[in-house]
Amino acid sequence: MSLTNFFIVDSTLREGEQCPRVNFSTEQKIEIAYSLAEFGVEFIELTSPVASPRSRQDCLKISSLGLPCKIVTHIRCHSEDAQIAIDSGVNGINIAIGTSRLLREHGHGKNINQIIDLATEVITYIHSQNPNLIIRFSAEDSFRSSFQDLLSVFLPIQKLEMIHRIGIADTVGIATPFQVYSLIKSLRQLVGSAMDIEFHGHNDTGCAVANSHSALEAGATHIDTTILGIGERNGITSLAGFISRMYTISYESVSRYNLKKLVPLHNLLSEMIGIPIPFNHCIVGESAFIHKAGIHSKAVLSNPQSYESIDPMVFGLDRQIITNHRLTGWNAIADRANQLGLNLDVDEIRQLTLYIKQLADQKLLTQNDVDQILLDASI
Amino acid sequence: MSLTNFFIVDSTLREGEQCPRVNFSTEQKIEIAYSLAEFGVEFIELTSPVASPRSRQDCLKISSLGLPCKIVTHIRCHSEDAQIAIDSGVNGINIAIGTSRLLREHGHGKNINQIIDLATEVITYIHSQNPNLIIRFSAEDSFRSSFQDLLSVFLPIQKLEMIHRIGIADTVGIATPFQVYSLIKSLRQLVGSAMDIEFHGHNDTGCAVANSHSALEAGATHIDTTILGIGERNGITSLAGFISRMYTISYESVSRYNLKKLVPLHNLLSEMIGIPIPFNHCIVGESAFIHKAGIHSKAVLSNPQSYESIDPMVFGLDRQIITNHRLTGWNAIADRANQLGLNLDVDEIRQLTLYIKQLADQKLLTQNDVDQILLDASI
Repeated sequence: MSLTNFFIVDSTLREGEQCPRVNFSTEQKIEIAYSLAEFGVEFIELTSPVASPRSRQDCLKISSLGLPCKIVTHIRCHSEDAQIAIDSGVNGINIAIGTSRLLREHGHGKNINQIIDLATEVITYIHSQNPNLIIRFSAEDSFRSSFQDLLSVFLPIQKLEMIHRIGIADTVGIATPFQVYSLIKSLRQLVGSAMDIEFHGHNDTGCAVANSHSALEAGATHIDTTILGIGERNGITSLAGFISRMYTISYESVSRYNLKKLVPLHNLLSEMIGIPIPFNHCIVGESAFIHKAGIHSKAVLSNPQSYESIDPMVFGLDRQIITNHRLTGWNAIADRANQLGLNLDVDEIRQLTLYIKQLADQKLLTQNDVDQILLDASI
Repeated sequence: MSLTNFFIVDSTLREGEQCPRVNFSTEQKIEIAYSLAEFGVEFIELTSPVASPRSRQDCLKISSLGLPCKIVTHIRCHSEDAQIAIDSGVNGINIAIGTSRLLREHGHGKNINQIIDLATEVITYIHSQNPNLIIRFSAEDSFRSSFQDLLSVFLPIQKLEMIHRIGIADTVGIATPFQVYSLIKSLRQLVGSAMDIEFHGHNDTGCAVANSHSALEAGATHIDTTILGIGERNGITSLAGFISRMYTISYESVSRYNLKKLVPLHNLLSEMIGIPIPFNHCIVGESAFIHKAGIHSKAVLSNPQSYESIDPMVFGLDRQIITNHRLTGWNAIADRANQLGLNLDVDEIRQLTLYIKQLADQKLLTQNDVDQILLDASI
């Protein structure tokens, strides 16, 4: 498995619905689905059709749009849920059940043997009803489950030869990249190279993006994302975060996506749910490509790569060098004067830079203020 | 080095000033410094006194506050900068110079031998002027520098026996946790156990928190953070992100900090700079401890740890279970009815849950709407 050969399972329309402020209408879901498909994600995951009457109708509707990606839905390990999912028109069904002691005791109440029996029943039933459905079976809370329990569940289920992927989920966001690597590497060795492995990582401790990359390094094939990382609690791996991570590993790994659609996709969601894009979000945050300190500005003017690991142009964005502050330097001021078509010599620029720094110490400056200072000086 | 034995170098007042929307006044800097000290960070890093006249006055002022943490400033590898820093009243000086080809060619223009000579001159000078100053020497852009170049610079500087820490910086945010681990582990073996190692990680590819933890695992001793992660471009390791990461590794590693001050500290900065706290920020984001999906709510009502890796109470926060949406479940509705002091039997609760889901499919519900439905049903 090469690191460029992965699939994105975008779960904005499932996990994302679990974000507190989110209440998608059918029309909004359809618009997001089209935009995700246009960006190029390989899978779109939808809320369980069991969740509510409209959730069911939305599965039917989105499955019938003829999008160039697989539509999957996410259900509990229940035969009734499975039947409703089979009838919902999706291409695949993602089954999840908690395997940790906490989720067994405080969630569904089943022991490991009961989980195996139930999973076998549900998977066999789905396969008997429609052998073309893509089936993923996931162990919720994998990182608080014992490795023995995970194997006890996964290995007999793999033997059914009916599932396409096993899922590893960092449900409470505690895993470190090393733990993710270790678990998925061990699993990969046991399940062989033919079985796909999906990773779903929550971000409670800020490691979801790193963990997703680590999962791929260990042999995972599918990564769950959402736009802006929305999801239960503080969410999961953000799509833009994951793209930024993989872009810097290998441009080829992300060049198949329509990268110029990443920003519009985030703007769309942000407006829809009424949550501003975090200022510091990877790639799509307002400050991602702004250079401020004088040392940085100087080097970026000479070669943008000096202080950029990501080329903003690839995402249809521009870099910006701001000079209306006390940290600016004379190279940045000289560049600004050039942009304004002004002829000022180096000594003048150095003097003006000191003046601008002093002024910025005393009051907030706008870029217009700085421009006016330069214009006045050139007269 | 145990993982609990690390030091936080908070750089909100240096790196944070490089965030586009930030323009701290002296009074604001003082308020942040007091709040950081109250939280318990071990180091506060200030903008270079060379940056502007007020930056210099602010160093003098904050150094004289008598805070229970070390005040350090961050300078270029220049003798003139060093002199001004020595005179600024700080406890320590963090020197940084780029060692990558890109920063050498497009930044300061010096080759590796010139860097060694210059660093030796600057460090020797600082030490001769005030041997009590804590000196850190950092290789900017460490992860695009060759290991050979890093050693060529670090080893002769260590031999001076005048510096306390070497600094490793992921200046453009490209490192993976494995790369951070590998580099710092190798360095640790070469510099021995007596030398402190500081890690500074940018977040361009979303891995700053994971990389900081990885640095500690490899033997680093000091981690740079800022409140909200503010900094040049999309910033560095966020303080709350780092605390959440270390909390889940070992509560003992963070129990020495005044954890209930973390939220006020973030609110203070957010209001000051006019940037809302990202909704999905670790610990301090609005949704960090909100449970929404029915399955999650049920388990959390039985045992909060089911779907929480962090106890909100430790940070003076409450968890919340929201029921005004289509993903709610009957256990959450039953709990809400109990909170309202209503007597409704299980069948009634299940019927009401289906009704609330259907209603939420059709329109936005508030918590008041849900409460009214329950109240009406109990009459």
